[in-house]
Amino acid sequence: MGRVTSRRRVVRLVDDAVTVRPDTLAVEEPLEIRVRGKSLAVTMRTPGDDFDLAAGFLVSEGVVRAPSDIASIRYCAGATADGSNTYNVLDVGLADGVAPPDPSIERNFYTTSSCGLCGKASLDAVRTVASWQVAADPIRLDPRLVTEFPTKLRAAQRVFDRTGGLHAAGLFDAQGNLLCLREDVGRHNAVDKVVGWATRGGRLPLTSTVLMVSGRASFELVQKAVMAGIPVLTAVSAPSSLAADLAEEMGVTLVGFLRGTSMNVYTGGHRLGVTAGAR
Amino acid sequence: MGRVTSRRRVVRLVDDAVTVRPDTLAVEEPLEIRVRGKSLAVTMRTPGDDFDLAAGFLVSEGVVRAPSDIASIRYCAGATADGSNTYNVLDVGLADGVAPPDPSIERNFYTTSSCGLCGKASLDAVRTVASWQVAADPIRLDPRLVTEFPTKLRAAQRVFDRTGGLHAAGLFDAQGNLLCLREDVGRHNAVDKVVGWATRGGRLPLTSTVLMVSGRASFELVQKAVMAGIPVLTAVSAPSSLAADLAEEMGVTLVGFLRGTSMNVYTGGHRLGVTAGAR
Repeated sequence: MGRVTSRRRVVRLVDDAVTVRPDTLAVEEPLEIRVRGKSLAVTMRTPGDDFDLAAGFLVSEGVVRAPSDIASIRYCAGATADGSNTYNVLDVGLADGVAPPDPSIERNFYTTSSCGLCGKASLDAVRTVASWQVAADPIRLDPRLVTEFPTKLRAAQRVFDRTGGLHAAGLFDAQGNLLCLREDVGRHNAVDKVVGWATRGGRLPLTSTVLMVSGRASFELVQKAVMAGIPVLTAVSAPSSLAADLAEEMGVTLVGFLRGTSMNVYTGGHRLGVTAGAR
Repeated sequence: MGRVTSRRRVVRLVDDAVTVRPDTLAVEEPLEIRVRGKSLAVTMRTPGDDFDLAAGFLVSEGVVRAPSDIASIRYCAGATADGSNTYNVLDVGLADGVAPPDPSIERNFYTTSSCGLCGKASLDAVRTVASWQVAADPIRLDPRLVTEFPTKLRAAQRVFDRTGGLHAAGLFDAQGNLLCLREDVGRHNAVDKVVGWATRGGRLPLTSTVLMVSGRASFELVQKAVMAGIPVLTAVSAPSSLAADLAEEMGVTLVGFLRGTSMNVYTGGHRLGVTAGAR
């Protein structure tokens, strides 16, 4: 669809010098995800790989585990008053026997933003619904290989250099090969697009892979990794307390501040040959 | 409550040197916001200023416009199975005559993530529900004053230097004085806390003020500025396309890439004495 960036005139001020020039912005548009015709979620996303985004979102929700769980994905025609297709509403058909998500708000919040009660209950909830045992994943990584991930990710990012406005998520194998890269104005969306790409290609669980994100590591990103069977999450910036708690609980290796030749290993250090950062 | 940061042992790798040391993480915990006992939203936030967060969120939702609209805010006792108070669930009582938010998912998504149909409809929706006319705001700013905002914001950020993991939002007056600063793992939360602080202090609409954010400028942040009556939004990083569209539509001055002595003015340049960056 080619709506990843848009051009706009901008006034550039540097000290007292004023210039008017064209600027490239990352496109942000809402995507409504419906399941069997029923509205499930709206996310502000960068258009592109929308089917992957929807599939990955449903994996994170615990609805989808295999490509056969999805019967169809299509854009909804006639979403606007004049009947045109905006490509901003899509509908997912589930296979027979696959339970649709509970449309109640409680369920929705439960899965996308944890249970709302306390950290401990949130951790329990994720542990209960996760399909894969990432704690047992045998992947071992040379730290020097890991330090190359940010450079590889950045080199493959085509849009960032033009807009400065996109988050990136990349999936690496144990040999450090970049399997998939996605960019989006929303950091969760970038991860959902990677997971959805893998899901639709029949690659779940993502055994012995590494998910690398360009920003911070939150609770929800660790949750998404677990739901896709990814045993290692690395981030350029800081993790939150609950991200580290969940990673420890689920046996995920969590690396933060991955910059240059240095990194902080918060949990699961055995996979990098170092003592785990236990509390 | 003092739960803004938590300590954790971390394995630090620099080249081949391994050290184990304590690290400070930004705390992330879920906050469930209820209105008249009914669950409205759960957000992953950094504890602290929770009442402001709830108030600001309700301003963004179009539910609250003045402090008198809020009858009470309190933490819910007995939110857990053992009856203890987690300080992660709070209930907002609205004054008589104030309509609670429509609890349907459609309404919820409509207000928090736009309408889900297309960008144009989203812009229309915000224009319809906004209470204040920010386009008419007479504020004028010297660009040199604006270039000082990031430094002032950073100097006032107490937690970031310890964790590297928090977003910041600051409110400045037209003379460049920092009126309020809030930090949070969630960028929307930081803005909601600032808006809620102003709301509960009877300061809405925030005429002739500037909202400064430490990250990118998304559609939703422009929306929150408009709903609080803030005429100028400045960001350290890039805006999205829809953020610029909404800012133009609503008459908000939008500045991005505010770094050092330079900035990009996307909309409303007249307030900075430069030609507006029209498309």
